[in-house]
Formats: sequence, structure tokens, C-alpha cells
Amino acid sequence: MGNELEKKKKDTIWVAKNLFQRNKVSGSSANISFRDGDKVYISATNTCFGTLEEEDFSVLDLDGKHLDGPKPSKEFPLHLFMYSKDSRNGAVIHTHSFYSTLWSCLKHEDKRDLIPSHTPYLDMKLGKITLVEYAAPGTKELFDNFCSAMNEGNGYLLKNHGPIVAAEDVLKAFYALEELEESSKIAWHLRNERI
Amino acid sequence: MGNELEKKKKDTIWVAKNLFQRNKVSGSSANISFRDGDKVYISATNTCFGTLEEEDFSVLDLDGKHLDGPKPSKEFPLHLFMYSKDSRNGAVIHTHSFYSTLWSCLKHEDKRDLIPSHTPYLDMKLGKITLVEYAAPGTKELFDNFCSAMNEGNGYLLKNHGPIVAAEDVLKAFYALEELEESSKIAWHLRNERI
Amino acid sequence: MGNELEKKKKDTIWVAKNLFQRNKVSGSSANISFRDGDKVYISATNTCFGTLEEEDFSVLDLDGKHLDGPKPSKEFPLHLFMYSKDSRNGAVIHTHSFYSTLWSCLKHEDKRDLIPSHTPYLDMKLGKITLVEYAAPGTKELFDNFCSAMNEGNGYLLKNHGPIVAAEDVLKAFYALEELEESSKIAWHLRNERI
Amino acid sequence: MGNELEKKKKDTIWVAKNLFQRNKVSGSSANISFRDGDKVYISATNTCFGTLEEEDFSVLDLDGKHLDGPKPSKEFPLHLFMYSKDSRNGAVIHTHSFYSTLWSCLKHEDKRDLIPSHTPYLDMKLGKITLVEYAAPGTKELFDNFCSAMNEGNGYLLKNHGPIVAAEDVLKAFYALEELEESSKIAWHLRNERI
Repeated sequence: MGNELEKKKKDTIWVAKNLFQRNKVSGSSANISFRDGDKVYISATNTCFGTLEEEDFSVLDLDGKHLDGPKPSKEFPLHLFMYSKDSRNGAVIHTHSFYSTLWSCLKHEDKRDLIPSHTPYLDMKLGKITLVEYAAPGTKELFDNFCSAMNEGNGYLLKNHGPIVAAEDVLKAFYALEELEESSKIAWHLRNERI
Repeated sequence: MGNELEKKKKDTIWVAKNLFQRNKVSGSSANISFRDGDKVYISATNTCFGTLEEEDFSVLDLDGKHLDGPKPSKEFPLHLFMYSKDSRNGAVIHTHSFYSTLWSCLKHEDKRDLIPSHTPYLDMKLGKITLVEYAAPGTKELFDNFCSAMNEGNGYLLKNHGPIVAAEDVLKAFYALEELEESSKIAWHLRNERI
Repeated sequence: MGNELEKKKKDTIWVAKNLFQRNKVSGSSANISFRDGDKVYISATNTCFGTLEEEDFSVLDLDGKHLDGPKPSKEFPLHLFMYSKDSRNGAVIHTHSFYSTLWSCLKHEDKRDLIPSHTPYLDMKLGKITLVEYAAPGTKELFDNFCSAMNEGNGYLLKNHGPIVAAEDVLKAFYALEELEESSKIAWHLRNERI
Repeated sequence: MGNELEKKKKDTIWVAKNLFQRNKVSGSSANISFRDGDKVYISATNTCFGTLEEEDFSVLDLDGKHLDGPKPSKEFPLHLFMYSKDSRNGAVIHTHSFYSTLWSCLKHEDKRDLIPSHTPYLDMKLGKITLVEYAAPGTKELFDNFCSAMNEGNGYLLKNHGPIVAAEDVLKAFYALEELEESSKIAWHLRNERI
């Protein structure tokens, strides 16, 4: 068990560092978590993915009770909700990755299918992407909007804010997030093209 | 012989890591192979170029029979075809690099010469780029479309999907892929310019 | 105290290197400083953030008297001003980060609120961004324009030149600078969109 | 003297690797040289800036006679010309950096001043940028066009090809090249803006 927890921490830190180094994440704006049994390990508030270390994880139970480590990211309720809605979810990543965030700022007619399928990969990896209406970061209102938007999917764009995805483990969540960012980037570039 | 195989593995891993770190590849969407005598070493299914290691190569014979290692990328038939069509091909790379993929989403009149020659380098390194009609990734239909599109060239864009290139060795395949991405990027930026 | 100074230097070098490696800074165009008691440590003139080392800090007192180390960046008066205006400021970063600089080249109606709030983060981290009118880099005139533009805020765009930010410590200044760059990038992309 | 040569090699390799890692250079398309007394050390043909090592330098005399090491980049005559025109030049870099290359593909009215001065830095670091008319890479005709375009400046764009710059040492050449790329990028983004 201990080794499995260590591996999850190590993978999560690898994902965080690589998202940072490759400019998919900037400053202190992202947060990441994984589930280990009935505990959730989430990056602390005001941490930077570029410097994330093992001691920067806050440990919560599935109801959000703080068990150990530093103060959690203020977006922790969104993470916990992703675990409670589907027990297969083992990791959650929330970022302000540029093109996903940009796309979240536009008007969208179908709020249950935000990203056009120019390539087949997002559908394969994550399914349809759903909009979460705007509310200030870290607020109860944002959490309520998140719950209202929730469906069977694991990919969401918080309006004027950024993407949040869940998957079985942190590497799969990373692959899903990357695909969402690529798909948003293609969607942006092709938004005015006849194709 | 053993040392040569080690060098090919090492070079292939270097190429994979550098494509990942420089954002030419994201998530788990790319695959890479090299030929060593009558064996093909190809990155396993669902591997990430950022974490590729020696044990992540699946070993196949030239007919696709699995000899050793993990399950191969589902695009392995495309790789094998590139080796069978020209015995000088020693390495194949398939990615979803952004501008090549974006360019593959547009309509093209001449499907045997997709990329305008704004600079002379793509012609010098890879020749004309040919379109492969769309079919779902990893399907027999995509393989058939690939075979139909095949000509003496070593550079292809799979429609709404991404580039695939072959060359004598993995470094040359890497140089070719990079040139294709740069040329696609220039083509995109100049598509509406009077020049 | 010695350990605290070492930590400040180490953090400053980490910030410089990461800004460089992630293409938020290029060549020798940026400068960075931190305050330690009544001394200011600032990157030397013509240094590159990619190679910055401990011996590249020039040491000044708060009036700009050169105490130790190499010749300071010619923009040191702007840094000192940011410390004198608010004693809580512990670090200052000035760069030519692309989108902030690009945005500084455009005409702006409200020179006390340059960046539209497409996302809430810049307001949360840095507040309103103010324009500093153009004068040649390193001149008394630029310094005078800087002083004239000064208000309670910690974020400025020097016109046709680039951003300058201050914060409590160098990591917070880094987070603020990154947010300013992301916000400028979103502003640029959405400048002609109906949203 | 030996130590000075070692430092020049080390700096040149650092510049090459950092240009590659930060996506200012791709594949095997760039070349770099420095002068050491009456010898020129230039990256070998078909080398990649990402893997450049000490043994990849070809050694030439100032007339282009091959003295030692592997075969030089085919663009070596352009490098030698930059040394012969001004004995203060100690390093030359030629790349296909994206925005400089893109800008070189556009029509320009004033071929002796290609880049608008949206910021003051390019003028400060490199002066006016001059166009070199198109001819195929590595040809006598390209060399002749290069000689015809030559003036007191140290910054040139080869049409439909890419930038070439010279400076006193390789770090200054690097700073100049980076400024040229940033200035070309700003020029591209602002080409249709009213400012």
C-alpha cells in the first residue's frame, strides 16, 4: 500500500512539473489531486506546479475533512465532487490551460457539447465536454453551478476560468487534459474556417 | 549488433522525450518505431513520449507478429507498411503535432501535394506530402486508405488526425517531422496572405 | 538571516531560469530584483535569465548606491521606486514577455485599467494594470513617466516595452507576472470577438 | 588560450541547446559558428542543435579551407563572409526561427529596414535588418545575393529561408537573434492593427 501511495505521489508530481514546464500551466493557478482509498491528496493552496513536492499535498477525507498536511487548494470541493460522482475516478486536474480557458470565454449554444470533433480523440478519451456557468473561484456558487452541470462525463470547462477533468489515474487524467487543450486549440483556429 | 540496437533505442527515446518536452507531442497520442534487421520495435499502446523507456517497446516481426514486450500501439500496421514499401526506411514517427494536424483538417485541392513550398526545406527533406482520407484511428479502413494513398513519398497527413513520416533512421525521421510541422505552421499563417 | 538571503537568491534564480526556459523571457532583456532588509539585489546589466547565477547580482542600497557586485541593470531606478512606494514589496520583475509587450503596443482608452477581466485572476493577484507612457529604456524620462503613472497598484505595462510587477516575495511576483501574461494573451485573442 | 577556446565551445553548445529546447530551432536546420583567432569553428552538416557536442564542430580557416573535424554546414560561406566583413564579429548564428522566417516570406518595400520598430530593442541590439534575395540554400547564387545585400549591419533575413546574425561573441549573437525573433513576432501580430 505504501509503495502504491508513493507511486501516485510521484506520478502526480511528474504530471504537475511537466504541465508547468511545457506551458500548459502558469504561476500558481492549477490544482491536482488523487484518491488513495478513502483519502484524497490535493495540492496545497498557492502552490506552483513547477515546484510541487511531496510535502505540498494536503490530505482530506472524502467529505473534505482536513486530515494532514498544509491547507488545501480552495477548489477542493470540485475535486471531491468528481470522486463522489464516480468511484472509478482516481485523479482530478484543474488548470487554466490557455486554449481551454480561451474557449470557455466564448458563447456556446450547446452547453453539453462544447468542443467540435475536428479529430476523434477527445471523444475517445474524455467524451463530451460540458460548460459550468460562471461564479467566482472557490465560492459556494461555483460549486453549485458545478453540481448542476454534472453528468456522466469527466470533462468540464468552468466558464471564464478553465478546464477540470477526472480519470482513473493521474496519468490518464493528464492525457485527457492534454487532449482537451489540443482540441480547444484546434477548435479556436478553425472557428472561422470553412472546412 | 547489440550495441547498434541499444543506440537505436536510445536515439528513439531521445526523439520521443524531446518531441514531448518541446510540445510537438502531447499526452499519449504519438507512436514511434524503428527497424532492426527483421524486427520492428514500436512504442507500446497508451505510452507517453514523455516517459518512454526501453521496456516500453513492443517487438514485432515485419508481418506484425508479436514477438516480445508489451502490446504495440494500435497504429502498428501503418508503421509496418512504411517499412515494407521501402526497405531503406529504418524508422517511422506518427504524432498529432498541432499545425500538421490543423492543416490536415482543411480542404485540399491537390491531395498529392498538401503543403505549399514557402521555404525549400520540406521538399529537400521529405518531398511532397500526401493526404490519407479519414477513417477512425486504428481501423482496417484507415489502413486501407493509407495503402491507397501510398506512393514513393515518405510523408503523409492522415486527415483530421496527424502526420506520419518515415526515414532511414530515427533522427532523420525526427528532422523530417519537425520540418513538416514548421512548414505546416508557415502554410497556416500565410494561407490568407498575398505574398 | 544568511539562510534567508540564500533562499531569496535561490528562489530568484529559479524564477529567472523558469521564465527563460518557458519562453516568457528571451535573450538578455529582463531584469529581476529582491529586497533584503535595506539592500536590493538586482540582476546585473546584460545578464540572461537562462544563465543567472549568484554572482550576477548587483547589490544596491535603497537610494541606488552601488554597494557590491557587478553593474546593475539600467532599469534599476524602476525597481527601487517599487520598493520605496510600498515597503511590503519584496521583489520586482521586469520582462518583455510577448503578449504583455504586444498589448502595451496597442492604443488604450483607460490607461488605469489596461487588461479586460475575461477571467477573475489578474484582479485577484495584481489588481488593475496601469500604462506607463513611452520613453527610451533606461532614461530619466522613462523614470519620470513611471513615477507619474504610479498608484497603489503593483502591475504596470511600459508602453512599447513590457510589463513590470512587484509583490511581497519573488515567487508571488512570478505568479503575478505569469497571470499578467496569460491575461494579456486572452485579451489579445478576444479583442475582436463578440463574447 | 586553450581555456578560452573551451569556453567558446561551451557557450556555443549552451546557445544551441537552449535555442532547440525553447523551440527557436527545429530539426537539423540551424548552424552556428565562432571565431578563435584565425580559425572558425562551425557546426557540422546535418547536426541538430539539440545534440550538438564538442566533436560536432568543423574547423576552417578564414578562407574556408577545412582544417579539422567533420564536414561543415553547407552555409559556411555565409558565416565566413560575416567574419571577413567585420573583424569584430566573433560568432554567427543562422536559424529558421519561426517568426523571422515567416516575416521573410512577406513582401517588403524597404529591403534595408525590414522590421518595424514597435519596441526599441532591435535597433539597440542589432540595427536595421536587411533582406537577402532568394536563392536555393547552400548555392553560389545565395552567397552572391548575400554579398550584394551586405552593409554595415549584422542582421539579415534570407528570403523564404530565415535569419542570420553576427556579434562580438556567441552570447551576444544569441541575444541579437532572440530580439530579432521577438521583433518579427510583434511585427507579424501588429501587421494589420491600427496603432
